[in-house]
Amino acid sequence: MAHCSPAALLDFSASINPLGPPPTAIAAIQASLADLVAYPDPSYAQLRAALSEFHQIAPEYILPGNGAAELLTWAGRELAALDSVHLCTPAFGDYGRSLRAFGCCPLEHSLLQSGVTTEAADLTPAALEQTIAAIAQTETAKSAGVLVNNPHNPTGQMVTAASLRPLLERFALVVVDEAFMDFLPPTEQESVLAWVPEWPNLVVLRSLTKFYSLPGLRLGYAIAQPERLAQWQQWRDPWSVNSLAVAAGIAAVRDQAFQAHTWAWLPPARSQLFAGLQHQPGLQPLPGAANFLLVKSESSVMSLQLQLLQQYQILIRDCASFPELGDRYFRVAVRTEAENEALLQALSKVLSA
Amino acid sequence: MAHCSPAALLDFSASINPLGPPPTAIAAIQASLADLVAYPDPSYAQLRAALSEFHQIAPEYILPGNGAAELLTWAGRELAALDSVHLCTPAFGDYGRSLRAFGCCPLEHSLLQSGVTTEAADLTPAALEQTIAAIAQTETAKSAGVLVNNPHNPTGQMVTAASLRPLLERFALVVVDEAFMDFLPPTEQESVLAWVPEWPNLVVLRSLTKFYSLPGLRLGYAIAQPERLAQWQQWRDPWSVNSLAVAAGIAAVRDQAFQAHTWAWLPPARSQLFAGLQHQPGLQPLPGAANFLLVKSESSVMSLQLQLLQQYQILIRDCASFPELGDRYFRVAVRTEAENEALLQALSKVLSA
Repeated sequence: MAHCSPAALLDFSASINPLGPPPTAIAAIQASLADLVAYPDPSYAQLRAALSEFHQIAPEYILPGNGAAELLTWAGRELAALDSVHLCTPAFGDYGRSLRAFGCCPLEHSLLQSGVTTEAADLTPAALEQTIAAIAQTETAKSAGVLVNNPHNPTGQMVTAASLRPLLERFALVVVDEAFMDFLPPTEQESVLAWVPEWPNLVVLRSLTKFYSLPGLRLGYAIAQPERLAQWQQWRDPWSVNSLAVAAGIAAVRDQAFQAHTWAWLPPARSQLFAGLQHQPGLQPLPGAANFLLVKSESSVMSLQLQLLQQYQILIRDCASFPELGDRYFRVAVRTEAENEALLQALSKVLSA
Repeated sequence: MAHCSPAALLDFSASINPLGPPPTAIAAIQASLADLVAYPDPSYAQLRAALSEFHQIAPEYILPGNGAAELLTWAGRELAALDSVHLCTPAFGDYGRSLRAFGCCPLEHSLLQSGVTTEAADLTPAALEQTIAAIAQTETAKSAGVLVNNPHNPTGQMVTAASLRPLLERFALVVVDEAFMDFLPPTEQESVLAWVPEWPNLVVLRSLTKFYSLPGLRLGYAIAQPERLAQWQQWRDPWSVNSLAVAAGIAAVRDQAFQAHTWAWLPPARSQLFAGLQHQPGLQPLPGAANFLLVKSESSVMSLQLQLLQQYQILIRDCASFPELGDRYFRVAVRTEAENEALLQALSKVLSA
């Protein structure tokens, strides 16, 4: 449509770290090409050891997967076996897929508050926190499951770990998708990962491909109690994670320089992008804790998206996959300051035309 | 145990093509490293187009997977929903896993004929053909499924495509695992792949990692009718196959020189290995159509396996994962003529010691 190759496109639609992939991970892949003639180790002992060291949690609590998405399939299977499953919406589309795959129709709790005008459905900065607090009051929690995303996609809102505790105290199963948590420096993370040894009803999902910019490689992991992970291993085949992802993952979690660089880049780049979006006529970004921002627009974003693509080869993410949001929202990844500036300038020109 | 690194080991235990991986596939991986920053195309259009051209079957009949093993999971889910599932044993251990994963306990049909002596349970050269013919007589076939492996692992026996037709005519679902079929030149293959457009109850599973020596990369595909494949895609996540496997797979199926080289290598190398095994005291290889041979031994193979490993750094596959075979069988891959010769010489020395 934009008559340009994917490489020429400035892609704000996928929430991938613009600083990666780390050269250490690419070097590890290249050094492992000769190992492709062997099957992966089904126990993934080396990768689990590296993740264990990274998180300071015993390796038996960790199960690597073919992307967090593969592990979501098995989390969906567990959740679907319960009487009901609660979900905050808008939500990552694959949550619904993983639940419907096993015959479950989730109970949706909208983060959107209906406003006074007929069309306005708005997100408050505390929408996720309030919705989770409301879900925690579910009377049938004892036989129910809940799937939450922290930080939340697409709003970027993050709740404290403490605010998830009432869910753990009441629900049969709590799955927390922390796919974007690693974009926060360790001292600011609100992860519940370390609680897994105490809570048999907790599953945490993590991705390694957003922070390390390797979504084509497929690598994620679940943190949960060993009995549950053993069950998942019986459900899936023995060699779910490819050997190159194993090598890249081990190198990536040990690359402290890349991690520090990313944690140093994100807050100022996000502030720059947020401020710049706030100054655009008719746009209102939502404060976010992750590496993307959700933006509300006074008018439909479809024409804005098309003009950015055709005139500036810039791709933003409309919210068609988040139907609750309608056509007045778009999502943009935080990229480098120069790239963010290019987006802001293009937006200025399109919006003032 | 053998005090040597895996690289120093001469591995006859995994049935992987010793001529690969093809340099074209490795080059394709290297050329695709820059694409790892993007998600794979969930439709896998390019890979399906390459496979479509390779097999001369429309792309909508093809679904790539994270190894044939991932697709076996979904085939297992379909089979498990039927009233009963029939299996020839001994069988690849993952068949049982994929069925038990969805609560199914398969009905096993043994290829072994009990002999006149108490301990002998023997495989005839026509065991697979006879067993399939017997399964085809199942009275409840209309509501049942069958999972067959052609050529069969671990016996190496191959049946004609025609001998599977009675199964298709009678069973609700027939899954044919053809993971080793590509080791035969096209004119000698007994594949039922081309029948898929006519038979909605047929699923064919194929691997790309044995023939092209890339088991660490994970790549296989299913051939079945589009409605079934669409269902599987709703069960699994959207990005099951990593981008490097996509690139390698496209290069591999187009590498006619590598294919021709492999088809020229296998028959004489297998004949050499078969003849050499036949001359060993106490060993009897079974004629096989694939890139491995099953060998019967007069005595337990455990000590033989240990001595080959300790004294010669040669690994053969005991049949512990095929419990029906007991401890009197082992399996060896066909490797290069020089490597086969090394195995035969080591066997001679151990067996005559």
